[in-house]
Amino acid sequence: MGRNRWEGVRDGVAIVAIFTSMVMVALALVIPELGQRWLPWLYLLDLLCWADLVYRALRARQGGYLESMQGSKLALLLATAPWELLFVTTPMIEGALPWLWALRLFRLFQINVLLLRLQLLGLQRSGSIHLFRLLINIALISHLLACSWLLLGYLAEDSSWLAKTELLDAESQRQYIRALYWTITTMTTVGYGDITPAHDVEFLFSAGVMLVGASFYAYVIGNVALLVGQLNASRNQYYQQAQQVSEYLYEQQAPPALIQRIKAYYFHRWRRYNSVSRASWLDDLPHSLAVEVKTFLARRLIEQVPLFQQASEPLREQLLDALELEYVAPQCQVAREGEYNEQLSFILEGSMRVVQGGETLAMFGPGDEYGLHSMTSGERRTAGLVTDSYCELMHLSQTDYDRIQQHYPEIKTLLEQALSDNLAELDRLNQQGARL
Amino acid sequence: MGRNRWEGVRDGVAIVAIFTSMVMVALALVIPELGQRWLPWLYLLDLLCWADLVYRALRARQGGYLESMQGSKLALLLATAPWELLFVTTPMIEGALPWLWALRLFRLFQINVLLLRLQLLGLQRSGSIHLFRLLINIALISHLLACSWLLLGYLAEDSSWLAKTELLDAESQRQYIRALYWTITTMTTVGYGDITPAHDVEFLFSAGVMLVGASFYAYVIGNVALLVGQLNASRNQYYQQAQQVSEYLYEQQAPPALIQRIKAYYFHRWRRYNSVSRASWLDDLPHSLAVEVKTFLARRLIEQVPLFQQASEPLREQLLDALELEYVAPQCQVAREGEYNEQLSFILEGSMRVVQGGETLAMFGPGDEYGLHSMTSGERRTAGLVTDSYCELMHLSQTDYDRIQQHYPEIKTLLEQALSDNLAELDRLNQQGARL
Amino acid sequence: MGRNRWEGVRDGVAIVAIFTSMVMVALALVIPELGQRWLPWLYLLDLLCWADLVYRALRARQGGYLESMQGSKLALLLATAPWELLFVTTPMIEGALPWLWALRLFRLFQINVLLLRLQLLGLQRSGSIHLFRLLINIALISHLLACSWLLLGYLAEDSSWLAKTELLDAESQRQYIRALYWTITTMTTVGYGDITPAHDVEFLFSAGVMLVGASFYAYVIGNVALLVGQLNASRNQYYQQAQQVSEYLYEQQAPPALIQRIKAYYFHRWRRYNSVSRASWLDDLPHSLAVEVKTFLARRLIEQVPLFQQASEPLREQLLDALELEYVAPQCQVAREGEYNEQLSFILEGSMRVVQGGETLAMFGPGDEYGLHSMTSGERRTAGLVTDSYCELMHLSQTDYDRIQQHYPEIKTLLEQALSDNLAELDRLNQQGARL
Amino acid sequence: MGRNRWEGVRDGVAIVAIFTSMVMVALALVIPELGQRWLPWLYLLDLLCWADLVYRALRARQGGYLESMQGSKLALLLATAPWELLFVTTPMIEGALPWLWALRLFRLFQINVLLLRLQLLGLQRSGSIHLFRLLINIALISHLLACSWLLLGYLAEDSSWLAKTELLDAESQRQYIRALYWTITTMTTVGYGDITPAHDVEFLFSAGVMLVGASFYAYVIGNVALLVGQLNASRNQYYQQAQQVSEYLYEQQAPPALIQRIKAYYFHRWRRYNSVSRASWLDDLPHSLAVEVKTFLARRLIEQVPLFQQASEPLREQLLDALELEYVAPQCQVAREGEYNEQLSFILEGSMRVVQGGETLAMFGPGDEYGLHSMTSGERRTAGLVTDSYCELMHLSQTDYDRIQQHYPEIKTLLEQALSDNLAELDRLNQQGARL
Repeated sequence: MGRNRWEGVRDGVAIVAIFTSMVMVALALVIPELGQRWLPWLYLLDLLCWADLVYRALRARQGGYLESMQGSKLALLLATAPWELLFVTTPMIEGALPWLWALRLFRLFQINVLLLRLQLLGLQRSGSIHLFRLLINIALISHLLACSWLLLGYLAEDSSWLAKTELLDAESQRQYIRALYWTITTMTTVGYGDITPAHDVEFLFSAGVMLVGASFYAYVIGNVALLVGQLNASRNQYYQQAQQVSEYLYEQQAPPALIQRIKAYYFHRWRRYNSVSRASWLDDLPHSLAVEVKTFLARRLIEQVPLFQQASEPLREQLLDALELEYVAPQCQVAREGEYNEQLSFILEGSMRVVQGGETLAMFGPGDEYGLHSMTSGERRTAGLVTDSYCELMHLSQTDYDRIQQHYPEIKTLLEQALSDNLAELDRLNQQGARL
Repeated sequence: MGRNRWEGVRDGVAIVAIFTSMVMVALALVIPELGQRWLPWLYLLDLLCWADLVYRALRARQGGYLESMQGSKLALLLATAPWELLFVTTPMIEGALPWLWALRLFRLFQINVLLLRLQLLGLQRSGSIHLFRLLINIALISHLLACSWLLLGYLAEDSSWLAKTELLDAESQRQYIRALYWTITTMTTVGYGDITPAHDVEFLFSAGVMLVGASFYAYVIGNVALLVGQLNASRNQYYQQAQQVSEYLYEQQAPPALIQRIKAYYFHRWRRYNSVSRASWLDDLPHSLAVEVKTFLARRLIEQVPLFQQASEPLREQLLDALELEYVAPQCQVAREGEYNEQLSFILEGSMRVVQGGETLAMFGPGDEYGLHSMTSGERRTAGLVTDSYCELMHLSQTDYDRIQQHYPEIKTLLEQALSDNLAELDRLNQQGARL
Repeated sequence: MGRNRWEGVRDGVAIVAIFTSMVMVALALVIPELGQRWLPWLYLLDLLCWADLVYRALRARQGGYLESMQGSKLALLLATAPWELLFVTTPMIEGALPWLWALRLFRLFQINVLLLRLQLLGLQRSGSIHLFRLLINIALISHLLACSWLLLGYLAEDSSWLAKTELLDAESQRQYIRALYWTITTMTTVGYGDITPAHDVEFLFSAGVMLVGASFYAYVIGNVALLVGQLNASRNQYYQQAQQVSEYLYEQQAPPALIQRIKAYYFHRWRRYNSVSRASWLDDLPHSLAVEVKTFLARRLIEQVPLFQQASEPLREQLLDALELEYVAPQCQVAREGEYNEQLSFILEGSMRVVQGGETLAMFGPGDEYGLHSMTSGERRTAGLVTDSYCELMHLSQTDYDRIQQHYPEIKTLLEQALSDNLAELDRLNQQGARL
Repeated sequence: MGRNRWEGVRDGVAIVAIFTSMVMVALALVIPELGQRWLPWLYLLDLLCWADLVYRALRARQGGYLESMQGSKLALLLATAPWELLFVTTPMIEGALPWLWALRLFRLFQINVLLLRLQLLGLQRSGSIHLFRLLINIALISHLLACSWLLLGYLAEDSSWLAKTELLDAESQRQYIRALYWTITTMTTVGYGDITPAHDVEFLFSAGVMLVGASFYAYVIGNVALLVGQLNASRNQYYQQAQQVSEYLYEQQAPPALIQRIKAYYFHRWRRYNSVSRASWLDDLPHSLAVEVKTFLARRLIEQVPLFQQASEPLREQLLDALELEYVAPQCQVAREGEYNEQLSFILEGSMRVVQGGETLAMFGPGDEYGLHSMTSGERRTAGLVTDSYCELMHLSQTDYDRIQQHYPEIKTLLEQALSDNLAELDRLNQQGARL
């Protein structure tokens, strides 16, 4: 985890450095004085950006993750090559060099590669990083467009939008604020119309910004719509199902108590399992990894039930593969008197009552098992079980039990030898005629 | 249900109190006179908000639902702590205190927690509460931004937007209306441009409101798109299927009558079952809860068919588990002369004719059963059945029948003993050579 | 179909009548002269609306579809009750009556009920009617808001937006055009700002229209996004799959010819079956209806293959149930020399060559069958089959054949007796050592 | 591939020609001088358009793809018929002819047919062509609306928007830029309001453009939202699953190392297979095509394992059908000491260690197989296998092995005869008591 934190800090520094560098370069290109003043800082930020790239290239050679995500190596090269080395004698931000500096704006790709990496591999929530990526891009694109709009104003001078709004002689800070304001007004399609183009080129540039803004806005809406769907995916899924079922039952005039119980059941299951249907995703993992996860998820079962503690690893694996999870609501009859039984059950969580003819004979809780007698004897149950709270159960079907016993005959001895308190209790109940 | 209604009233009062409190606090912060005048009311509303929080915290300790949804306990604490107790000697809305009062605006979280709770657990439709939640948030955010905009106007005085639109000396009510109008114009991206910023800070604030407004709008669009998809989910699903199938058949040049019948069938089934495929959601419930639901849904079957009335509970459960529902269109041949039969069927709804060689021998209706003779004898049917109306049938396959009979041999006796009128009729038909 | 056309005409007339009535009533309420002049026409349109409602109510009693879709019977009642009967002596559009007439605007519900009905039951494409419904609603809501805006202008007189834009004395036609233009400018969030509110009430009304417009726009976007997804659903589904598969194969460096064949295969299958996976939707229909559809779809098979013509209905049904469809690309080896065969196949469409050791022995086409000899003898094939064009095949697996033969032993005799040309040919080939 | 490239060039030329032709015709209709000057070029472009149509019509007759996609043959006919032949004596762009020329604008359909064809059949990514299609349509529609707006300005003269913005006497280039700027301002709903309608007709036209623009914008948003969802579909799918699983495990307090392993596993599998679940799409292809793909995908297996090289084609087909792929993470125990084994496995990629009691006995790599001894003898394994890197395995289950051996008994001899180095090694290990 230490290595992960260090990676996080490094990524954070790189993102801040590239972001600041882009903002400063864009401003320096439009307002030359700033370029002169910021020169040392710009080179410092450049060093950081280069360091990040070199580090990443080295890691990529060691089989890292970056190379598959770059997509646009040319853009990265253009953005980071030290062009001033070619012009080492001439002072920066004069003559041809500035336009080479403008290439640094392609670092937009570098920042996106970093953010995508964070999104794909980080432990944080994907949605918030996705939003952050959108935000960074909005900020940078707005800034670049604002700088271009300001540049247009300087170039056209008297016939420019600056002249039209009487800002030609204002301080550059105020001019920049106006340019940024105009960009955001246009990109968000608000369009007050208090700053409008004055010159033919400005008219075309405005039209371009509108198209870019509108497309980008559509892209943002598309992404947000996707995120809204994804962020609440698990909640929506749970909710939609609970709602559909209760509406259906309501129309069928089911008693309100039943509807309420089912809604409450869905709610509790959602809170307990987050709508992650365990079965489906475990089947999707390779078998050996799935076994590790299953062993972890069933850790309480393994701790509490002697059968699992004493079983050999291959047998335990077979059992974990075969067990099926059930989450049961309170006041449910999980076993019924007179019922023919085909499974062996373990209680992971919750408590239940052993009932016979309406009378409570005993209480079962986590670590207890039931169903062995009725399953192996093939006779009907003579006692039932009613849950007292939400219970998590695991069932081993007779078919699986028989299949496992064929290859691992020790299971029977283990079950009989490893008598837990509960098995003794079950035997006692059985002798009293309450077979479970 | 009484308890639910009481909870609903309590939630409603809390939502109204928090909403009013936020609106009043925001206005009082901008226009001090209002703060002075509304002081007692503000404290009264505070009391209600506090009462709600205390009640909820107590319930959470009893295993209530709230704790898992708060997410931002710090915000709630900041919003509700009685900061004035620290400044008990100084009059409110003067000096440092107002800015502590501003913290009450974090109650936005409290109101959202309440609304989310309503959405997740209420019996009402989820869609409308979701929309209501969006609405409340739009209203509160617009109000807060309008108040901030007004405050900016007061602070900048002569160089403010108020001065520019000649509203500096207007009554505060009119000023507020203008500020609210400006906020909505900007947030909805309409942007008339009749009220525009005048001051550098105002320019930046406007840009911020635009960004917030556009993002929020994108969020609203995302949510509405989701809701549009969800609200009509069941109708869309039915419709899309009916449309796809009829287009496919149309292209295969199927006779129009067949296409019409299939469309009508889909429509009727949608109206009857709301596109809730019964099988899938019942499989998702724990077995014991599913049995309860099945018992309810098959209540008419249990009432009408002696077999189900006289069966023991475990046997009935087995039967309900094994039965499969079919919804059949009119004029369909559900049983055919000369056919080999492998299931026993019960009619829940609708009526059908027993036909042999084109002749109608008898009419069957709700509660009647058919298929026993041909299934148990293993001989072909010598009579057919044609539906007269939309029918709901339940089938018990031979495999399931044999499996159940193995453990519960009483089923055979029950079927023979519990001769319903219809079974007598079937026997009569059988002796006349019309075996079903 | 005649009855359907008549229904369509009736629905069309009703929609036009209600639409016109709403437009005229709204205008008449704002500009009294128009109300006076249009009075007879308004009553005529009312008659049509009432007739529609009465007709529909009568049909609903006969078990029609309407009743389940109304939702808001109160709105319909308010909109259509003949309120003027209460004021029969007073002239219309004066005094209290106009405001009762305004209730006719609730006919918005009536028009939506009609359009929904068209969408759900019509044979036309759902998407276009959905769009038409959105359009009608946009038009009516814009019109109503424009009329309200005009009314506000008249009421405020000198301090109104009409005065501000110097339109107070213009002809009412021009005023209406301006009001409509303003409404659309605002609802689409364009917001030129050439017509802006002047009065406090107008400011609030504008803010309201903006909110309504923005919400409605969000709703339209949500619907359009849904429709875009649905309209191209079948094409998108086909395309996405073809694209995903070919990209995967491309990355695995599969030969281009193979990728092209697979893309072409997907394209042809999409054109042939419209992405409707036949199996899934037929399983969803009740069995007896599915048999009718299968009988239709396999009509060519039944016409061409003697086995199906001479089989009894129950046997044919069994066969149709068991047959599985396969759509095969050209140059595919559907049967291979030396292969063990477990199915009997029928050719519905396309042609293929019988090959043995690279030599073509015969050509098979629609109506031909193959696989009987190798399936029944249990020996390997000694000849293969290669498709020449896209072929549609139907397969009967050995398991199903055996199962059917158990109950319907006549199938064997039928297969042998009903020697088609192709079976004779197969026998000839078999005797020459080319067993298929 | 040569033919494909040639098709691509032809399509590109046709698209450019139609696009240019539409832009020029629209301008020529509004500004007659341009029409006069461009006449020869317009006819040249027409020739290209006609050539494209003729070529396509010919191909369609040969069973090409076009005919099924046209949809609107009438539009194509109107757009391309050589109307001037009817007026051969009169000079173009004067009198009635221009309005016939306007019909050429229906070529919008032709360009869309071409782009759709490119999207459906090209090897390029679908998303980018979809976006390009949207772009072309936006550009053409904006241009057409701008030309119409300019025409309105010319027609109304003194009372037009041109007069209002003092552009009536400006050069036509500047006027066109203003018209285009206005169109884009309106369609993107920016709405500055610096150019507004002046005349009643212009007001109505503006309202129309707003509606068209807003609808079109909604359509673009819907498409972009769909594309955002589709473009990242495979990444989103992988990411959502990895995220859901790791959040679930995090809440269950699983050790971070386990979570990291599972995330890394998902990431690697996504990079390796692009989320294309191989099984599902191969089942969807016809069997004979699926065999070809499987043969390609298993080419390394066939090259490396003697069993596959020496097997007859039908046997190889059976084996490829039965093999199941597994992708395993490093440090996973793919075989366990003491385990009962039911499958024969082949290593396609990666390396693993043979371990017995914690000791490494041997290394296995691509082309090696394991599991034969334990599977055929039915005894437990006495050695295990642990992966060293990400491994791609293929498993043949005992059931499938037995089924295949029944029909193709040569498989056993082949397995024994074709002793690969690895099989010799396995035998050696087996004799030492390490049975795999």
